Amino acid sequence: MAQATLTISSKNYSSWSLRGWLLCKLSGLNFTEAPVDPDDADYRQELLLLSPSVRVPRLTHGTVAVWDTLAIAEYLNETFPDAGLYPRDVARRAHCRAISGEMHSGFYNLRSALPMNLKARHKSFKMFSGARPDVDRVRTIWQECLDAYKGPFLMGDTPSVADAMFAPVCTRFRTYAVDMGPQLEVYIDHILAWAPMQEWTGGALAEPEEILELEVEF
Amino acid sequence: MAQATLTISSKNYSSWSLRGWLLCKLSGLNFTEAPVDPDDADYRQELLLLSPSVRVPRLTHGTVAVWDTLAIAEYLNETFPDAGLYPRDVARRAHCRAISGEMHSGFYNLRSALPMNLKARHKSFKMFSGARPDVDRVRTIWQECLDAYKGPFLMGDTPSVADAMFAPVCTRFRTYAVDMGPQLEVYIDHILAWAPMQEWTGGALAEPEEILELEVEF
Repeated sequence: MAQATLTISSKNYSSWSLRGWLLCKLSGLNFTEAPVDPDDADYRQELLLLSPSVRVPRLTHGTVAVWDTLAIAEYLNETFPDAGLYPRDVARRAHCRAISGEMHSGFYNLRSALPMNLKARHKSFKMFSGARPDVDRVRTIWQECLDAYKGPFLMGDTPSVADAMFAPVCTRFRTYAVDMGPQLEVYIDHILAWAPMQEWTGGALAEPEEILELEVEF
Repeated sequence: MAQATLTISSKNYSSWSLRGWLLCKLSGLNFTEAPVDPDDADYRQELLLLSPSVRVPRLTHGTVAVWDTLAIAEYLNETFPDAGLYPRDVARRAHCRAISGEMHSGFYNLRSALPMNLKARHKSFKMFSGARPDVDRVRTIWQECLDAYKGPFLMGDTPSVADAMFAPVCTRFRTYAVDMGPQLEVYIDHILAWAPMQEWTGGALAEPEEILELEVEF
């Protein structure tokens, strides 16, 4: 069997690493994690980037090298077509890709103003007003999905690429005490209790404390 | 046959519209263009956005509605598997998706400092220094592709999703007189001379002049 390695950075701070890692878990791929060396000069730079990079997350699988979360998602979907990364129905699959693409290319203010930080809890966080339209758009996307497909995941019964793409947003809303209303809070609870998220969060909480000093950089 | 409509905004300014339109042309889809009304209150807002949106580009095809350029690319690739939107080789296809994903989620400084404007030519444009790493990254991506696959398109003999994603960047480098060196200038020439690009550019140059007033907003 081809050897698979996923390069990731901080489990506490790197939302793109989390997305790539969840996609690998969803696919059933047997993979090894390769953390970027925290002493690496590029490491800090990596965490400050708001978009994915050529370095993180990056999947090597046999002779294939693929970076960027959506490219990884499509590669895994082709390689493991029965894993259900995308819905079977063509219209639902297009919807799944559309909202995953929105998360991938947009929400710049949300990502910069509310960086992922699984260890932190801010009870009275004053949100940058520029991030509000992003939060409103997330609310609309989630509500439309839950109304159309009846949950508990965005695309229905089973987790999909869309849940992996929005999972870091779920953690941010808890970190910064953003109240999404009863129905959407149930969705957030569901994602945070999802076994792979529990596993990742455990890893994040176990990360050395010195990494926390990066927080002031955001 | 299912009816297809692609909603786009300005042909002169909207790089995301151009990408979605090129993807439809690549796929061979028979589609109608539906321009967003320029008198629409949201129209200006649309052009100022640096990422694609739920409104532009948006493809409806029969009962399927799909927005976001990469989601449109994947939908078209599934619907027209023989159109060659992605390379046949698995590793090359992963590479194509990875660099397309980079363009989709990153290059924020390049996109904001050098907005697409097909009608304009700036002979001595002073580039925001923050955009330089983005230009360097584009150079690396293109050079690696042309070295590996021998051109004239990024993935080899035939155009792919990657060329559609980077086509607006080709126009920007000409608009702002960014010199990419002889080999990459040949690639830019090739893309700008590509029949669908010629068709789009003709449409851009024919757009009413009043839209030009938006330029000062960037």
